[in-house]
Amino acid sequence: MTELEGLAGRLREFARAREWEQFHTPKNLVMALAGEVGELVAEFQWLTADESADPGPEALARMRTELGDVTLYLVRLADVLGVDLVEAARAKLDDNERRYDADSYRGSARKAPPLPG
Amino acid sequence: MTELEGLAGRLREFARAREWEQFHTPKNLVMALAGEVGELVAEFQWLTADESADPGPEALARMRTELGDVTLYLVRLADVLGVDLVEAARAKLDDNERRYDADSYRGSARKAPPLPG
Amino acid sequence: MTELEGLAGRLREFARAREWEQFHTPKNLVMALAGEVGELVAEFQWLTADESADPGPEALARMRTELGDVTLYLVRLADVLGVDLVEAARAKLDDNERRYDADSYRGSARKAPPLPG
Amino acid sequence: MTELEGLAGRLREFARAREWEQFHTPKNLVMALAGEVGELVAEFQWLTADESADPGPEALARMRTELGDVTLYLVRLADVLGVDLVEAARAKLDDNERRYDADSYRGSARKAPPLPG
Repeated sequence: MTELEGLAGRLREFARAREWEQFHTPKNLVMALAGEVGELVAEFQWLTADESADPGPEALARMRTELGDVTLYLVRLADVLGVDLVEAARAKLDDNERRYDADSYRGSARKAPPLPG
Repeated sequence: MTELEGLAGRLREFARAREWEQFHTPKNLVMALAGEVGELVAEFQWLTADESADPGPEALARMRTELGDVTLYLVRLADVLGVDLVEAARAKLDDNERRYDADSYRGSARKAPPLPG
Repeated sequence: MTELEGLAGRLREFARAREWEQFHTPKNLVMALAGEVGELVAEFQWLTADESADPGPEALARMRTELGDVTLYLVRLADVLGVDLVEAARAKLDDNERRYDADSYRGSARKAPPLPG
Repeated sequence: MTELEGLAGRLREFARAREWEQFHTPKNLVMALAGEVGELVAEFQWLTADESADPGPEALARMRTELGDVTLYLVRLADVLGVDLVEAARAKLDDNERRYDADSYRGSARKAPPLPG
């Protein structure tokens, strides 16, 4: 069992024990994910690029907490939809490696958005 | 090496080969993550709750692609920040299990938001 | 002076008096907007469609507060960029009226996303 | 009639003519708003702070289009909920002016988030 499968299983049991499966439709879960990503974005909104890379222990602890929330909802949403997140990410990264060949896109965020975009 | 560590390593090399580390500040990456989550939300916006749970193969394929994009940026952001996503998620789930004890919160999304909230 | 121009002027003065113009780059402001939209989404995440249309006075008051926050950042962002929000919205609505002619798209969210999409 | 009331009226008629009121629940509309804000954020994600303030005519045109989309959904959502956006924004700005008095918060995004936060 991978670590994400372990998390998905714990979340399944968490929802079952509280009879919260009724609330955990994909539509609701993607909204919850968006809400948590909003909280994560808010941690970075007034930081410069440099500050964001070295935010200090207190801000980093808050970012870590928000990253945990985002991960929980992402794993739960994927589990309810029956999607394997790591397989989906690998497939997308395979695409990106083909689409943005290193020689053509070196050093430029202008020609194309780095990563999925 | 876990599967997320494998992904993080591939993304590190992907960015390095294209000299895109300069763009991959946490501030920029969290914005990219928010943009991808926006695309994921858009896949669900006109669906009913029931439709979202059974979206059909075409919509599910698009959702899977967007979930892959979200996962890539989330893994890359956490890697740049030096945060272990699975540890962060486990710590948050431990908190939630204490905070929302099953007997008090059974069947109610009103008393408290399910999961992180 | 329109009501949005009035708001934009108050926000300009608000930022100036606190020497916060330095933080109000478009990049920072769009992140703040995304954060506030995340809070707004969170108000709706566990509601059914019907509940969302009739949320009760307490939830509606929270939604109104969040809508106010979203509006403030949207107006401030547009002001800093020199964009007229109402003109931009009218131009987009003109496009949508042409693109989604009423006879072809009546009753269907499947053929095309309603509104901007 | 204010300019936002004019927009709200056009959107009401736009939805009515296409029989799209059935899709325009607050829950769906807030998701559509989040999706459009995601597209707006994506326009800024690889820009430096300085570039975001002077993005050039092509990027600015795309930002203007996305700002139009965001405004349309925000106005439509508020209309369906019966919320006056400008009143809500003024009320929140009144609060902020009291909460962040100019002398205490001058020049600092650290003590408190500028604006709503």
